[in-house]
Amino acid sequence: MNDAIPEADARADRAADCRPPALNYCSRCGQKLSRAVPPGDDRLRYVCRACGQVHYQNPKLVVGTISEYDGRILFCRRAIEPCAGLWTLPAGFLENGETVAMGALRETREETGAQVDIIAPYALYNICHVGQIYLMFRARMRSPQVSPGPESSDVRLFREAEIPWGKLAFSVIEATLKRYVSDRRSKDFTFSMGDIVPGKGRF
Amino acid sequence: MNDAIPEADARADRAADCRPPALNYCSRCGQKLSRAVPPGDDRLRYVCRACGQVHYQNPKLVVGTISEYDGRILFCRRAIEPCAGLWTLPAGFLENGETVAMGALRETREETGAQVDIIAPYALYNICHVGQIYLMFRARMRSPQVSPGPESSDVRLFREAEIPWGKLAFSVIEATLKRYVSDRRSKDFTFSMGDIVPGKGRF
Repeated sequence: MNDAIPEADARADRAADCRPPALNYCSRCGQKLSRAVPPGDDRLRYVCRACGQVHYQNPKLVVGTISEYDGRILFCRRAIEPCAGLWTLPAGFLENGETVAMGALRETREETGAQVDIIAPYALYNICHVGQIYLMFRARMRSPQVSPGPESSDVRLFREAEIPWGKLAFSVIEATLKRYVSDRRSKDFTFSMGDIVPGKGRF
Repeated sequence: MNDAIPEADARADRAADCRPPALNYCSRCGQKLSRAVPPGDDRLRYVCRACGQVHYQNPKLVVGTISEYDGRILFCRRAIEPCAGLWTLPAGFLENGETVAMGALRETREETGAQVDIIAPYALYNICHVGQIYLMFRARMRSPQVSPGPESSDVRLFREAEIPWGKLAFSVIEATLKRYVSDRRSKDFTFSMGDIVPGKGRF
């Protein structure tokens, strides 16, 4: 079934899928799309003048965990672009049919092999310039056992002093961790929101 | 610019846009799509065997507010399907480029004409069977002034005893309100999560 989709292509598409793609053709009828403001709307959309379909593009939810075992935090090292070789918290796109917690558990399992239990939603970050909303959960590892999935080259548990601050993949992960380390001292993990703005070429 | 997109079509598409649509053609190259599990993936996707594009479909975020003025809660009556004639809280799909709070304020303004200030994120509901995640905020109206937008036939401020429980548009709105009315008594508005499961034909 899969022979026509090279593995590298599928992965690159998935990793680069962070800005709404240009739409050329109508996914319903196959005709060329136009850009227009539909009646009753107030912004440019991709619209099909042949069949009338309006193709909305909306932000995507990325869900993940900040998981602990015995005071150490679970990290994975990215085996794929973007940011291959850098460290991150397990997280990925929410799939249809999943709750946000189910998605966060799945991504954690896929990327680190860890079995974790969700404690509570912890932080939401708006990353408007790439159309992503990150929702991170606090979680507890059932055991220290890990096993890197295909998207990770390494999985480690770091104590606070070992966090690889200069080698983190994304600003949103850095922001989550900074807040978490601070909240851990005060033991106040109230759910919070923040914004990640364009900066150092990462997000 | 808009003459080829009948208003009724655009609105119906928008209202019905609650399940992932079947994709027939590749939006990149216009060729017929297939269903296949891409290499390294574990679920069926729409894939293009001509250009290699994988077309992911992900849940959408719906953002809205539960806004108060002088103890009364802001409602709008739906002028459009689904559930025309029934009452709801202002909410709608998050747009690209918006933070979740910006989206909730925009939807509130568009549907009710009210100027409100966000107090805090209040509740997240997973509605897995329609691929939607609702995120509702508590908010405060700056004045009691309202003005129904094109998607509302009426806008009202209801005291608790006046809430039209039997005439609410969606289960997620009923769940949000039930919790809110209870939390108001205890004055504990801790952020919470819940699931809406298929039931009475509403969501």
